[in-house]
Amino acid sequence: MDTTEKQIRIPSDQMKAEFFRILLRLGFTTERAYKCAEIFTINSLEGVYSHGVYRFPRFIKNIREGYIKPDGVPSLVHRTGAIEQWNGNLGPGPLNAIFATDRALEVATGNGIGLVGLANTNHWMRGGTYGWQAARKGYVFICWTNTCPNMPAWGAKDPRLGNNPFIIAVPYHDEAIVLDFAMSQFSYGKMESFRNEGKKLPYPGGFNTQNQLTDDPGEILESWRPLPAGYWKGASLSLLLDILATVLSGGLSTHNISSCASESGISQVFIAIQIKNLHNFPGIEKSVDQIVADLRKSIPENEESKIRYPGENVIEIRNENLKNGIPVDRDFWEKIASL
Amino acid sequence: MDTTEKQIRIPSDQMKAEFFRILLRLGFTTERAYKCAEIFTINSLEGVYSHGVYRFPRFIKNIREGYIKPDGVPSLVHRTGAIEQWNGNLGPGPLNAIFATDRALEVATGNGIGLVGLANTNHWMRGGTYGWQAARKGYVFICWTNTCPNMPAWGAKDPRLGNNPFIIAVPYHDEAIVLDFAMSQFSYGKMESFRNEGKKLPYPGGFNTQNQLTDDPGEILESWRPLPAGYWKGASLSLLLDILATVLSGGLSTHNISSCASESGISQVFIAIQIKNLHNFPGIEKSVDQIVADLRKSIPENEESKIRYPGENVIEIRNENLKNGIPVDRDFWEKIASL
Repeated sequence: MDTTEKQIRIPSDQMKAEFFRILLRLGFTTERAYKCAEIFTINSLEGVYSHGVYRFPRFIKNIREGYIKPDGVPSLVHRTGAIEQWNGNLGPGPLNAIFATDRALEVATGNGIGLVGLANTNHWMRGGTYGWQAARKGYVFICWTNTCPNMPAWGAKDPRLGNNPFIIAVPYHDEAIVLDFAMSQFSYGKMESFRNEGKKLPYPGGFNTQNQLTDDPGEILESWRPLPAGYWKGASLSLLLDILATVLSGGLSTHNISSCASESGISQVFIAIQIKNLHNFPGIEKSVDQIVADLRKSIPENEESKIRYPGENVIEIRNENLKNGIPVDRDFWEKIASL
Repeated sequence: MDTTEKQIRIPSDQMKAEFFRILLRLGFTTERAYKCAEIFTINSLEGVYSHGVYRFPRFIKNIREGYIKPDGVPSLVHRTGAIEQWNGNLGPGPLNAIFATDRALEVATGNGIGLVGLANTNHWMRGGTYGWQAARKGYVFICWTNTCPNMPAWGAKDPRLGNNPFIIAVPYHDEAIVLDFAMSQFSYGKMESFRNEGKKLPYPGGFNTQNQLTDDPGEILESWRPLPAGYWKGASLSLLLDILATVLSGGLSTHNISSCASESGISQVFIAIQIKNLHNFPGIEKSVDQIVADLRKSIPENEESKIRYPGENVIEIRNENLKNGIPVDRDFWEKIASL
């Protein structure tokens, strides 16, 4: 993202301080306001602006409307072996997800693997954040969420599936390799970004209201018919992730999350795997290095092709934004400053 | 599949008996020959002919060439908490996978969740089979395999990723809901079936040697450039599944599985989750029923659209083939009978 006249660059500390100030006024404790402000800042710093700074006003709106409870904290419902089921009590999604991630790591620390099902929570913003959190502590991590119905089944016109982001993260030196895979070819956040910048999508991303495939993000945001990634494959994976989130958390399924405006009371799953006690642990870093090195030997299709592992660009964007500040639309930032 | 003049219908018992006879002569014990014949028959019975009857001769060839060891059985390498790491000792892929699935269920029975990493194994044929095996016993099940390099990275021309099938299965009444998701938009087996029937793919499925998207399965089988499902998304998921299979099994990664002819020494992961001790267990069947019922309320795009859950058509095909026999190309079947 280039800094144009309409854009300014906000230092990450300043951004975090603004978020912190606003959250404190809404009844967050100091610690929780800080943690929550940090997540929105990290998401922006790492280039996922749609689920960072640009999502913050909607987060605030959902708090004011009562969908998100500032003081809602997870409570343990049930424990069986290396599985824990928690009630998120409609607390802020990012805080609940940080908590559930840490719980999964703790359970895995004793058991090799640990699973946390989290019911009755709220939008976690960017799922990849929790993958980075876990992988940088040395764990393999898999997590996903269900969402409100925002994508049709394959062969259908009305949205009954969620785009249900699915995350896999692996430690990689002091950083991580992180897949953050929403089941629609483009996330709503991405489509909103493209629309806001007046751009077409690079590939057809859904159907318009006339049942035609289109690369116009505005048409898809109107029709609510984003294309499932891999056609029927992404649609099927979405369904299974919803079923698993519902079954393992004991929470609501996508079809019960009726309102996409609030998207409240969703279900999530967090699976951590401790790799340091595996028999091959001493060789794991080298194995992953070799896989990445082989990937980089790929013959690019053309001169513009960049062959990268998932999450590789996050580090570049983070470094650039740490150095130059986080790019934000000037008017948008003024709106936040006035909150 | 219709039975045409070129096709005959073989009763499943007769097919299993043929496979059994041939495997016995290759040095399988009675029990192992029976189990292995059963898997190839089930895969055919349930409509995955490409990884059932049509794959059997290649399986036999790989045994004769020494890549698959008829008497290779898994040995435990390491256990830590609810994780077990096994060496498949190059045994027959289906037998190793049945074993690893059962191990994962046993580990999960004590721990709620269990993970088995299986190194040094062979092609498991159809991954969904193990999902059905686990889910019909009442467990949620996730498994995947790496493969030889058979798909390029996104933006690349040469195959360095595997299509790494990924399976999620959930119990559903006495049957299961089973996702069997290879990372290429169409599996090689499917493309071979289309080519053998002289058909085009229903959507572009890869690039030809002129770097053009094509729906001609023969061109893709020549170029080895199948399209990753969801473009960069399927390519990224493939990479992560390979990394996890390598890390968790301690086995070979895709780039070390150099020969696609033998595809020997691959790595697999099996995760079982016991749901009967979850706090919401009494309501799980009803929850899944409601999700399926909601899916069925979808407004179809046109009169031909069938809105189904993954695995739903398996039951129909199984019943039809049980009643009428398994459709096989007449000449092909004669070749098997002469093995």
